[in-house]
Amino acid sequence: MARLLRHVTITVAVYIGGGEESSKEKLNCVKVNGSKSFTAAKMGLLRQDHAMPMPCIGGVDEDVLEEHLRQNIPRRKQMVDPYRHGEMVEEGVGYRQTVVIRSYEVGADKTATIESLLNLLQETALNHVWMSGLLSDGFGATHGMMRNNLIWVVSRMQVQVDHFPIWGEVMEIDTWVGASGKNGMRRDWLLRSQVTGTVFIRATSTWVMMNKETRRLSKMPDEVRAEIAPWFIEKHAIEEESPEKIEKLDANARYVHSNLKPKRSDLDMNHHVNNVKYLRWMLETIPDEFLEKHQLSDMVLEYRKECGSSDVVQSLCEPQFNENIGLNGHTASSQILQGNGLLGAINQRPLSYTHLLQTKGESKNEEIVRARTTWREKKHGAKPFHS
Amino acid sequence: MARLLRHVTITVAVYIGGGEESSKEKLNCVKVNGSKSFTAAKMGLLRQDHAMPMPCIGGVDEDVLEEHLRQNIPRRKQMVDPYRHGEMVEEGVGYRQTVVIRSYEVGADKTATIESLLNLLQETALNHVWMSGLLSDGFGATHGMMRNNLIWVVSRMQVQVDHFPIWGEVMEIDTWVGASGKNGMRRDWLLRSQVTGTVFIRATSTWVMMNKETRRLSKMPDEVRAEIAPWFIEKHAIEEESPEKIEKLDANARYVHSNLKPKRSDLDMNHHVNNVKYLRWMLETIPDEFLEKHQLSDMVLEYRKECGSSDVVQSLCEPQFNENIGLNGHTASSQILQGNGLLGAINQRPLSYTHLLQTKGESKNEEIVRARTTWREKKHGAKPFHS
Repeated sequence: MARLLRHVTITVAVYIGGGEESSKEKLNCVKVNGSKSFTAAKMGLLRQDHAMPMPCIGGVDEDVLEEHLRQNIPRRKQMVDPYRHGEMVEEGVGYRQTVVIRSYEVGADKTATIESLLNLLQETALNHVWMSGLLSDGFGATHGMMRNNLIWVVSRMQVQVDHFPIWGEVMEIDTWVGASGKNGMRRDWLLRSQVTGTVFIRATSTWVMMNKETRRLSKMPDEVRAEIAPWFIEKHAIEEESPEKIEKLDANARYVHSNLKPKRSDLDMNHHVNNVKYLRWMLETIPDEFLEKHQLSDMVLEYRKECGSSDVVQSLCEPQFNENIGLNGHTASSQILQGNGLLGAINQRPLSYTHLLQTKGESKNEEIVRARTTWREKKHGAKPFHS
Repeated sequence: MARLLRHVTITVAVYIGGGEESSKEKLNCVKVNGSKSFTAAKMGLLRQDHAMPMPCIGGVDEDVLEEHLRQNIPRRKQMVDPYRHGEMVEEGVGYRQTVVIRSYEVGADKTATIESLLNLLQETALNHVWMSGLLSDGFGATHGMMRNNLIWVVSRMQVQVDHFPIWGEVMEIDTWVGASGKNGMRRDWLLRSQVTGTVFIRATSTWVMMNKETRRLSKMPDEVRAEIAPWFIEKHAIEEESPEKIEKLDANARYVHSNLKPKRSDLDMNHHVNNVKYLRWMLETIPDEFLEKHQLSDMVLEYRKECGSSDVVQSLCEPQFNENIGLNGHTASSQILQGNGLLGAINQRPLSYTHLLQTKGESKNEEIVRARTTWREKKHGAKPFHS
């Protein structure tokens, strides 16, 4: 199973597959020719640093090598990623990516779903690490984390949505990182309309490190701090983060969905149930009649425990009808700033829900996520979901 | 609720929101300034035809107008879409888009999920129509279809996967359309590795038109034929399409999942359950032990009836252990061509499943999709899903 490695041009590395499909791949590789490079060049798609420094082939697992060549993760900091419309900003330590909202990222009302938006946050965060030259083989882990057998886990996330982007809308996503206590990192995001510069979404998150084997939280090793600290910026996407404690719901919660089981397709590269699935479990517990007439304006998620593929999950949710929420929460306070005053805030009657996802064990339950979602009324009449 | 419309530069149209949030949006619009345009220009992101011809504001619904400005659907054919890395090819009637496989498009094994790949097929098809200048307000419908109250519905789809792309891999997707009988249209796709040119995936589909109100299939009106016929290319992504009839399963099928209900998040812009959900319902009926060790190599879907949000669905599936399938099917025949011979094909024991999705009515069941999926063994040992 010999594998051949060749450079077709100075900037394009080509792998030719071995094993049982070698003849076919060799045939297809003939297509890497002048006209192809021309097309890529014409579109400004050729990477400056495309050819990876070639490791010694003899000592490296062939499949790992093939994966490296296909993924082409840079080992040095890159300033521009033309394939992803990404660039380094903020004196080279922040990341900005331009994305177009895709047809399958929107719901029946043509606006981006909150799940798609969470996916875009994850994607841009990983692309930031990708371009930094720090990305190792893991899911956002640096080389130093890899050496220490550490992975990132999120402990808190807050997302404020002022406007939902629509199908085809061009958005600009900024993301950057900062210090969070002694052993944590915060990551923030701003999503703007590319045309007007209007801020649509603000988000912040807190991350800590976990040992991959013991599954215990870890201090940040000095070598990891040395890698990431130069990237820290003292800037906050959300000025005043939600300070309220999220109470823990119990079996008396108004809405309870039980016996939820992760499926194969819900697992991410770390083999955990992904964030978006958590969110879907939470939102599906809110009654349809409410979701038809409201859209999310703010959510805070506090992560307590990872959810594995064999866990059975329960989603609890309790509405908060207290109008005071409007006075402390984001939507109301920004309205007051805009001069709509207290009355406007109360009239809008923002509602919120408290959520809990937990695993149902035989002897005890364990918390996965506590959350609070805050909602505003939709501007337009709602289309009923079940016709 | 006056809305102001301004051009900041010749090429950038800006809307400034009115209504209850006007002061806020005006504030944010200050950000549309020289440095912003510079950034966009630097990245090659300024559209040549960004400013839409301005309709008379008085007679147009303001929200429709705002949506138009934000979506910015072109009214004339565009040759290049720098935001989406799209360009017209094949003498200006085919479409090519470069995409990077995103972190959330891959499964636990770091390869793109078949659901993500279907999403990318849909996305590039719509972007093709988008750039053609033919796109009206609907989900891929042309102006002529809009005038005749028609929407597209897919009647058949075949996807052949030789390789699954991995996280971060740069792919080039070509798509084009052709005639299919008197009243139909076919749409084909080729997905290639951008670096090597190796073809990873081939797909073809057949589309017909349906009246939006009566939900009955429609002949293709002459004015619609006049719009789309100039785009037809006589070229097939899949040389020999699967000719076998897909049998209809009944209650004796080996695996049956009942009482499946669409959720809000499963609906597309046409308010129907989307394709990806169909596929998920089908694949989830296949046992996990099989999915762990195999990957999809071919699937054919025949669509019979649309599934609405209030339907209750049953997913049936029956394995085919007949080794002859390997001799007729795609995987085996391409191996024979490559000189691996008959023995190699039989050794690989390709397996296939027949599928049926149907609505469970009180008096009768109605078919939604019949399908056949064909599988190959994974190269590497499978990681068990439930640890």
